[in-house]
Amino acid sequence: MADKRRGEAELIAHYFAPLASDKEAFGLRDDAAFLSPPAGYDLVVTKDLLMADVHFFANDPPRKIAQKALRVNLSDLAAKGAKPYGYLLGLGLPNDWKEDWLVDFVSGLGSDQKEYDFILLGGDTVKSPERLSLSVTALGLVPTGSRIVRPKAKVGDSLYMSGTLGDAALGLLGRLGKLPAGMSEDDANYLRNRYWLPEPRTQLAEILQSYVHAAMDISDGLLGDAEKMAKACGAKAHIYTDQVPLSGAAKAVLELDEKLISVILSGGDDYELLMAVSEENEQAFLNHVSQQAVSVTKIGRLETGEGLELSSNKLTLSDSAPLSFEHF
Amino acid sequence: MADKRRGEAELIAHYFAPLASDKEAFGLRDDAAFLSPPAGYDLVVTKDLLMADVHFFANDPPRKIAQKALRVNLSDLAAKGAKPYGYLLGLGLPNDWKEDWLVDFVSGLGSDQKEYDFILLGGDTVKSPERLSLSVTALGLVPTGSRIVRPKAKVGDSLYMSGTLGDAALGLLGRLGKLPAGMSEDDANYLRNRYWLPEPRTQLAEILQSYVHAAMDISDGLLGDAEKMAKACGAKAHIYTDQVPLSGAAKAVLELDEKLISVILSGGDDYELLMAVSEENEQAFLNHVSQQAVSVTKIGRLETGEGLELSSNKLTLSDSAPLSFEHF
Repeated sequence: MADKRRGEAELIAHYFAPLASDKEAFGLRDDAAFLSPPAGYDLVVTKDLLMADVHFFANDPPRKIAQKALRVNLSDLAAKGAKPYGYLLGLGLPNDWKEDWLVDFVSGLGSDQKEYDFILLGGDTVKSPERLSLSVTALGLVPTGSRIVRPKAKVGDSLYMSGTLGDAALGLLGRLGKLPAGMSEDDANYLRNRYWLPEPRTQLAEILQSYVHAAMDISDGLLGDAEKMAKACGAKAHIYTDQVPLSGAAKAVLELDEKLISVILSGGDDYELLMAVSEENEQAFLNHVSQQAVSVTKIGRLETGEGLELSSNKLTLSDSAPLSFEHF
Repeated sequence: MADKRRGEAELIAHYFAPLASDKEAFGLRDDAAFLSPPAGYDLVVTKDLLMADVHFFANDPPRKIAQKALRVNLSDLAAKGAKPYGYLLGLGLPNDWKEDWLVDFVSGLGSDQKEYDFILLGGDTVKSPERLSLSVTALGLVPTGSRIVRPKAKVGDSLYMSGTLGDAALGLLGRLGKLPAGMSEDDANYLRNRYWLPEPRTQLAEILQSYVHAAMDISDGLLGDAEKMAKACGAKAHIYTDQVPLSGAAKAVLELDEKLISVILSGGDDYELLMAVSEENEQAFLNHVSQQAVSVTKIGRLETGEGLELSSNKLTLSDSAPLSFEHF
């Protein structure tokens, strides 16, 4: 056979079994994993499907593709106040896959498994002729009975977000060569890296359990996602657009082209957390967050009504349509 | 917009939310599901990725594509002695997807959810430009501490299989127009249906818990899968090839072309269970199975050694290579 690449069984034994040393996974020798969450914990499960040249570029560094696939799921877990537990990986390899690509991809998985204390539990490897496709199912742990879900947010809750907004969407523009001329290379690199490597805010998960009515990760753009959260609890999301936290690099972009504020407000891929916090919890919430290495900023409020209201002199709703990234 | 098809959010609300009435799924309004297995139960999780024209034909009936995607996972759960609990669906829709296709696909999901008491917990819907891709993560329940895994099988165990062998592989030949001339239409339909609709042997799950050392579903062909099971417990799989249970339709095929025995022994997609049963459990195992609407047949034995031995006058190992379906 001209094709010297490994077959499925060999590929699993060689590349993936070393990632699955935990006893639940039986070194991937089996088709299924048994889950025994510790006493006092429930499991949270989430799933994302990612396609080359739809959700990432086929020629992105394989290590970063792997890390992003895990991190978008870790971010969903964080939004539920869940501690990372483990994941299953569905890997659809295109016809032209290469061993050195896979080596780099697997090293990305291994490094994030360590960073986030996350284990590989199982998965499936198949052929996906035209393009790499990835499916990650992530499992997390929450104290039994804990249910941070959107419908618990209430009118009067303040809306907070973690980190800074828009870096990933601007990084994507940079990846496409569409950032304004005159950007510094450092800023452009910073933004591209934020697009490649979201930072799941797992360190906020426990705080969310105690002080937050509802949380979600901002994956499809702040405005669209805030509207979704508001809709789920029958309220209007009032967003203080001029309070939105921006990185130095994002500010530099706006100085060159202020219209790009709409990309910042509606662009996807940030994976920062959007949180609804009641007035009585607000101080305790801020006190606890201040002990973590991540900042949060008040960016709005849930009010009586429906839809979205933006308060800013510079921006009206029609400027920023569409509100969010649509996968269709 | 010329494209009148629904966007992602509308698509989920319209088609998938009605399938997710269980409280764990929150009507799919959220990005994650909370799992609370009943006291005394552990969760088992398994995952399959399926690509159009790799694992099924893009022009197969959508209802059957949906059912097969669930059933190959239900079969993995049955092999672990697990009762169906729920699933997450990753749906990658090709550029040319049609609403009536989706209606039929969703009806297949709904009908199998009812038949197998299986609930939709969540998922993800994305664009998969060239071909439909499906990712199913299935969760099942086993009594706490139960671990039916291959390495527990022992030399001396008898090998049993459920149902009949080879129908799906012959059905695939039929789907490709490659069955021998002279088949009756009824037999051809029977085989094609066995290819489209595997029957996960969930009714054996509880019996497996009590009387079986190891079990797996025969997805990649009996010979290859038996060798895998044997390897995992350091034994040789001796298969009594002339004892293998055949349907009437499969017998009719062999009368027309006896060489197709190699397709029967090594073809994939049957999703019958292969089980290792110790001598002392054998009678109790058979007694309990006899109360279920599925037959089992003794087809071999785990013996000292390694690899595979076939006992038959008609067949040698080299006749039947490759031993199993390889996804690469």
